[in-house]
Amino acid sequence: MVVVCYRHKISGRGRALGERKLSEEQRLDWLRLIRSDNVGPRTFRDLVNYYGGARAALEALPGLARRGGAAAPGRICSAEEAAAELKAARARGVVFVALGEADYPSRLQMIDDAPPLLAVRGQLAILARPLVAIVGSRNASAAGAKFAERLARGLADAGFGIVSGLARGIDAAAHRASLDSGTVAVLAGGHERIYPAEHVDLLEAALPHGAAVSEMPLTWEPRARDFPRRNRLISGLSLGVVIVEAARRSGSLITARLAGEQGREVFAVPGSPLDPRAEGTNGLLKQGAILVTETADVVAVLEPILGRGFEPTPAREPAPEAPGPSEPGEDERSRIVGLLGPTPTSIDDLVRLSQTSPAVVRTVLLELEIAGRLERHGGSLVSLL
Amino acid sequence: MVVVCYRHKISGRGRALGERKLSEEQRLDWLRLIRSDNVGPRTFRDLVNYYGGARAALEALPGLARRGGAAAPGRICSAEEAAAELKAARARGVVFVALGEADYPSRLQMIDDAPPLLAVRGQLAILARPLVAIVGSRNASAAGAKFAERLARGLADAGFGIVSGLARGIDAAAHRASLDSGTVAVLAGGHERIYPAEHVDLLEAALPHGAAVSEMPLTWEPRARDFPRRNRLISGLSLGVVIVEAARRSGSLITARLAGEQGREVFAVPGSPLDPRAEGTNGLLKQGAILVTETADVVAVLEPILGRGFEPTPAREPAPEAPGPSEPGEDERSRIVGLLGPTPTSIDDLVRLSQTSPAVVRTVLLELEIAGRLERHGGSLVSLL
Repeated sequence: MVVVCYRHKISGRGRALGERKLSEEQRLDWLRLIRSDNVGPRTFRDLVNYYGGARAALEALPGLARRGGAAAPGRICSAEEAAAELKAARARGVVFVALGEADYPSRLQMIDDAPPLLAVRGQLAILARPLVAIVGSRNASAAGAKFAERLARGLADAGFGIVSGLARGIDAAAHRASLDSGTVAVLAGGHERIYPAEHVDLLEAALPHGAAVSEMPLTWEPRARDFPRRNRLISGLSLGVVIVEAARRSGSLITARLAGEQGREVFAVPGSPLDPRAEGTNGLLKQGAILVTETADVVAVLEPILGRGFEPTPAREPAPEAPGPSEPGEDERSRIVGLLGPTPTSIDDLVRLSQTSPAVVRTVLLELEIAGRLERHGGSLVSLL
Repeated sequence: MVVVCYRHKISGRGRALGERKLSEEQRLDWLRLIRSDNVGPRTFRDLVNYYGGARAALEALPGLARRGGAAAPGRICSAEEAAAELKAARARGVVFVALGEADYPSRLQMIDDAPPLLAVRGQLAILARPLVAIVGSRNASAAGAKFAERLARGLADAGFGIVSGLARGIDAAAHRASLDSGTVAVLAGGHERIYPAEHVDLLEAALPHGAAVSEMPLTWEPRARDFPRRNRLISGLSLGVVIVEAARRSGSLITARLAGEQGREVFAVPGSPLDPRAEGTNGLLKQGAILVTETADVVAVLEPILGRGFEPTPAREPAPEAPGPSEPGEDERSRIVGLLGPTPTSIDDLVRLSQTSPAVVRTVLLELEIAGRLERHGGSLVSLL
């Protein structure tokens, strides 16, 4: 029996805040669903919208994986596991805030792949304030760290909370300078696997006026590929991102790119062409980032945005309500799978070339995804794994 | 008797090159006129256009000064003095190139206040090549000087000659790196008063492949105010100006402003916000200067301009031929003088408010200027001294 335990469609964008509050049972189901194999933030949203709730989606997973042609069924997070995580989180002072709840950061809610559940330690109130990210090299110069501190203090004085990634170098300098005014550390791993370990004390010092946030399981050890994923939350929480020092091909440039894609302001601090730590920031400036030499350069750009409030821009309207799950026919399914390959293909092309409906294509893609056979790229592109 | 010894109007802008060649007698008259009191490059042009030539203008000077209300008549450069300067110049290997002659730098010819005579030592051919200026702090950092050298070499490899001001620091680095490829030193004083004296050897080393240019008398000791005046020639000779390091309110920023006014490209090299020598360049970048971290950044902008050749842009068309000198009536003259004061006033307003003709206003302003009573500002503004 399908239990529709969460009736609202999740659009995740522009929905008035505080409209919903999950029951504890719903929160457990949400956690089970997002912790299950092959379920990312976008798939989570599709599943809950298709099946009317997380519980029903959980029950649909095995069938989806089978129809998607999974070699082996993906692991579904059990109720016991999820309950244990919730309990351990509570013991550590971590709360799970769900997309659409009043405490969920409103800017973050506007991005496509906002985490359904955000695990927060510290002050929830800091997430409601206007936030600016300050990020940069781990291998920062003394001047870079000093500038990051100065900027963090200046932005704090102007009323902004400071977001960063708790890394060595620029991140740590930005956090340190905003411990008393409010700082948000976005973790790549879980709350019990602080990285780098030497910054455990810095993190603890941030909590009385700030917060630490993570979308990963409490004991998740961060791997290299978790950092770019985490970076989208740094920019997603923030009105803008300031890159203080960045070598070529550094993680900070990923944050800058994601910020641009999310429609956030990108700021960069210039440096000497002979300083490798300025290659990335100077490159951003050539691409149109806003040049920052003092706090006022950031405030002048962000203050007018603040005044505009948190409404989504017209280009980011929620998609029309998706129809409920429609069972594709075998021939439709094989037509769509036949069109897919390792080269990323647009979903629009799949609909057109398969001569099926968008709903059918969405369902087949969902099946493939749950079966662990689909990769989603930016711009509605998908490929077969 | 008025001897019309130079019959062509001087427009100074966009005239086909090499159309004229002054006779030695004419060159002497030109030198006398530009070396006379209260005759600057703009006045020179007005005078020659009004009176049909330099000799006639020289003869008209006393009358103009008298009618302009000069307290004491300005000094008129005698034929003997001018001949002595020409002789001394020749002895030193300096040639005087006149506006409109084939050897006159075509880009420089396009500016409003191009010197009527340019005193050149070294290779005239370098002035016909595409030129880029590299300027910056006298008090340069090692990194700044190193970057200036690298950029000068890179631009030389791309076919550009390098223009600079022979100053300590960035200027010297730019010249040194382009001694063998072609460098142009623009002097604030005369060719016999090299400043700073320690750079006499650098200048000599520049001459086999480059040049030194000056608009000042051979033995003119440069004063503080001669440097900003000289800076217009640095930008005027060049397709673009690269500012490598510059403190706030430094001379290099004057060059950048003049370059902008002359329609030349302005490039700036970024630096740390904590480095006072980058305050000026970062400020230029905020105002829209093109960011430079490597040679290609400059070449990419200048190469398309090269292709366009040296035609003046439509906005810089030569003014319509001025009518010959028209003797203003006493009441007209006093009406115009009455409208003037220490506050800069536009020439258009003077014409409108005095209810006289543009030709009459121009003549009265010329009289006042020759009498040493008028100051010209940018944008056709004038004030009474």
